[in-house]
Amino acid sequence: MCRWLAYSGTPILLEELLYKPRYSLIDQSMHSRLGVETTNGDGFGAGWYGESAPVLFRGVGPAWGDLNLRELARSVSSPLFFAHIRASTGTPVQQTNCHPFRYGQWLWQHNGSIRDFTLVKRDLVLAVDPELFPAISGSTDSEIMFYLALTFGLRSDPVAAVERMVGFVESIGQRHGVQHPIQMTVATTDGERIWAFRYSSEGNSRSLFFSTAVATLREMYPENENLHRLSDETRIVVSEPLGELVGAWQPVPESSYGIVRKGDDALGPFRPTTP
Amino acid sequence: MCRWLAYSGTPILLEELLYKPRYSLIDQSMHSRLGVETTNGDGFGAGWYGESAPVLFRGVGPAWGDLNLRELARSVSSPLFFAHIRASTGTPVQQTNCHPFRYGQWLWQHNGSIRDFTLVKRDLVLAVDPELFPAISGSTDSEIMFYLALTFGLRSDPVAAVERMVGFVESIGQRHGVQHPIQMTVATTDGERIWAFRYSSEGNSRSLFFSTAVATLREMYPENENLHRLSDETRIVVSEPLGELVGAWQPVPESSYGIVRKGDDALGPFRPTTP
Amino acid sequence: MCRWLAYSGTPILLEELLYKPRYSLIDQSMHSRLGVETTNGDGFGAGWYGESAPVLFRGVGPAWGDLNLRELARSVSSPLFFAHIRASTGTPVQQTNCHPFRYGQWLWQHNGSIRDFTLVKRDLVLAVDPELFPAISGSTDSEIMFYLALTFGLRSDPVAAVERMVGFVESIGQRHGVQHPIQMTVATTDGERIWAFRYSSEGNSRSLFFSTAVATLREMYPENENLHRLSDETRIVVSEPLGELVGAWQPVPESSYGIVRKGDDALGPFRPTTP
Amino acid sequence: MCRWLAYSGTPILLEELLYKPRYSLIDQSMHSRLGVETTNGDGFGAGWYGESAPVLFRGVGPAWGDLNLRELARSVSSPLFFAHIRASTGTPVQQTNCHPFRYGQWLWQHNGSIRDFTLVKRDLVLAVDPELFPAISGSTDSEIMFYLALTFGLRSDPVAAVERMVGFVESIGQRHGVQHPIQMTVATTDGERIWAFRYSSEGNSRSLFFSTAVATLREMYPENENLHRLSDETRIVVSEPLGELVGAWQPVPESSYGIVRKGDDALGPFRPTTP
Repeated sequence: MCRWLAYSGTPILLEELLYKPRYSLIDQSMHSRLGVETTNGDGFGAGWYGESAPVLFRGVGPAWGDLNLRELARSVSSPLFFAHIRASTGTPVQQTNCHPFRYGQWLWQHNGSIRDFTLVKRDLVLAVDPELFPAISGSTDSEIMFYLALTFGLRSDPVAAVERMVGFVESIGQRHGVQHPIQMTVATTDGERIWAFRYSSEGNSRSLFFSTAVATLREMYPENENLHRLSDETRIVVSEPLGELVGAWQPVPESSYGIVRKGDDALGPFRPTTP
Repeated sequence: MCRWLAYSGTPILLEELLYKPRYSLIDQSMHSRLGVETTNGDGFGAGWYGESAPVLFRGVGPAWGDLNLRELARSVSSPLFFAHIRASTGTPVQQTNCHPFRYGQWLWQHNGSIRDFTLVKRDLVLAVDPELFPAISGSTDSEIMFYLALTFGLRSDPVAAVERMVGFVESIGQRHGVQHPIQMTVATTDGERIWAFRYSSEGNSRSLFFSTAVATLREMYPENENLHRLSDETRIVVSEPLGELVGAWQPVPESSYGIVRKGDDALGPFRPTTP
Repeated sequence: MCRWLAYSGTPILLEELLYKPRYSLIDQSMHSRLGVETTNGDGFGAGWYGESAPVLFRGVGPAWGDLNLRELARSVSSPLFFAHIRASTGTPVQQTNCHPFRYGQWLWQHNGSIRDFTLVKRDLVLAVDPELFPAISGSTDSEIMFYLALTFGLRSDPVAAVERMVGFVESIGQRHGVQHPIQMTVATTDGERIWAFRYSSEGNSRSLFFSTAVATLREMYPENENLHRLSDETRIVVSEPLGELVGAWQPVPESSYGIVRKGDDALGPFRPTTP
Repeated sequence: MCRWLAYSGTPILLEELLYKPRYSLIDQSMHSRLGVETTNGDGFGAGWYGESAPVLFRGVGPAWGDLNLRELARSVSSPLFFAHIRASTGTPVQQTNCHPFRYGQWLWQHNGSIRDFTLVKRDLVLAVDPELFPAISGSTDSEIMFYLALTFGLRSDPVAAVERMVGFVESIGQRHGVQHPIQMTVATTDGERIWAFRYSSEGNSRSLFFSTAVATLREMYPENENLHRLSDETRIVVSEPLGELVGAWQPVPESSYGIVRKGDDALGPFRPTTP
């Protein structure tokens, strides 16, 4: 299992979320409060958008001790970034297994697992579009989920594509006798919008939160200067709350998706479909 | 802070202590129960004696995920070995800072710290024998303690040398206004005997345990086959108990040293002296 | 491209071949004389047989600087071992891509490449026995060759299985318009015998040498004490000669295989077959 | 020995010098043409100035295979940056030994060595200002040179401070019977100006080049568009020439220093002095 965050809004330094808050993501790499594992020390990654294609920085050591991550976090500012800390569920600790994964303009990160992955992996891999197949570079379930979602139309209709991906994984799992084939919180982005998903076959998904509207928070905390630096459209999605501001985080409902975008954000029910 | 173990006795595979017991050392790398830090993921090391000089294997990632350590632990058998998992107290995560440290036939490993180390480091380094100075390869307090002990006679009278080293560290600390200059459990060996130390300036030292005499354990657990494979002289010293055998571990008293050797082992009071 | 060696005979320390000879394997990691690349710094590995299953030690840094490899090489003695230094042909530098690869009692190492691997990879992967598929852990052409050979019967008839594997890779390559689909020297072993192969679709294969019979070398160099320590059955297979002993190395002919085993060794023509 | 470059001028992406030129710095990590070692695979580093303190990115693997360096080089643009690839002369391959070194606003990088460093290291370390001593984090001669230069006034008079540092190293070396105590090309910067030095006790220093004035190059190559994007004040200092533009590189004379700064650059004789 893992922890992740996704940020969209006023450009900020990565360290504002990765290091500075109490219960920051880096703090969670050693002491997660809500994770299945308290330690998320099997690699990490960040992906951010600037002037061109998304930039990736991924490492195989624990995030808490990585000096390069600290340097970058205090110098890289971005209006949209992902960050992830990994607790391996069995696949090797190597850079190609670190999130976020990237394909073209898209990033993808995941917390959870495909259960009995070695049983179903071959069937899943075969279903990946042969054009996309050579781009798979690691060995995780999370990356296969990304390439299946791309195969099923992620770039044109993300919610439908992820619903198809999950439906497909569940159908393959069931064929192999797996009781609850998938457990996931996922974030994906094209650099403009962020889609977040919370779902598990057993209806008992890992935690996921989005930040309360900045306008509301400013009313609640008129003296908080940080909030005045952020645009109304700023939004954060996280595996577990950062910081200590009461009322700042809203749980994503079970079996839901959310969209962070210009204008109103959206929240809707997530319903896997058979492709 | 860190966790360590030292073994002397019937040759066994390293994995018997590193991986197999409940609460094994590798398990402690992620979930220490008695450590100041629950996570000890900042590198690890093992040192063992065979036919020639002690062999070192040290890595900078977390012990729990190191595939090479797992391979070696199931293939290397030794009558005397050390193993250590590290939680950095500030010095870099690099191989030269991983325990055990080696000088000639000697190994040294430490849990604890010299407080305000950056304040006192220069004075400590200057006191190291100039002949030994070039052999210092890392940047930890633990390694400086080793080279000071060597300077003060470790190879001829280990207990007196460590008492002098600690007395010296305390005198330098006090000169710089450090209240409780040192906190330590230490193990050192020449490949024949093991010396273990438990001490802290504040009289509240990190935990240390030695295994109950094998003969006694065999009487307590006559049906335990593992105990019948071990010689009477087998002894283990650990930061925190391995396994679940009730009565198998004895706490080392505050401010004490122990010697594991052929014939009767010894336990005595540890009294720092000013060199 | 890469460099490798395979040893069978009187048990020796790994360092006797990895470090001590002029032009040793570790020396070749920085200064190969016959390799396509002079530098083989993209990871390394060694696999050796002792009392139980083969033990692997693999690292992602350059072999020339790895302190753990040096420690193990001076302490591990074995009657049969493989060692490999890697120069990536494009796949990531990660432990799961380091040779030798292991499956049960078998080891496999390779120098060369499957050309246009990304074009043909999917077809090759699909042909791997579904029972074996989950054991693939890296992303190299070399590992897929191993699993195809296992699929085609490596464990019962190694020469025929490798001939079928190569014939299959060539047929898939040709279907995708690849002119010379495969280039290889390969060594594989079950811990008793070693099979070595030299082949390329274009009939211009990477260099491969086996050591002259020890009895012959002893006649040529009666005063060489090292040769008197080695049994008559000792044999070494290498990508390029080690040391400076004139007459010590025989080139393996183009399109050939060799078998190192108890009794007489064998050499024969290698003829790919279509499975 | 190592290779390095220093850039000052119109802000450019790091990849313009690290990856794009024929004979780029990354190319030199595997195939240096003028270096004592053809391979510089023992770690690397880059340091750049942006809006705040200089940012460091350093890694212990070979630069040629580092995916994070490639990502950063295509996304980080800077008006002043250093980059370095390392070939260890004996000290460990670890991040704290990678150049550039940083102290406050200053960066420092070095090619060469202090001869018989283990003989003289203690005397050199003792001469470092005790206030600066705790900031030493690695174990190289290069870093000690930096801290000695800081001790001798680098921040107020860089040329005089480096002359004193070299004079001091030579006097200590001579006291220990070292014939030619120092060999160096060094670059240092405060983020505004760059000082470069070429010197060796034997008067036979490693190569060093600075780029021809951009105005001159534009006259020579009126059709070269890259040159039109660069300001007149842009200057590059390198261990060995990048690219293939004839006339683009001027050798720094033996025993000289150069200053890159706003207005006219300077070149002068380097004369070690005894502090």
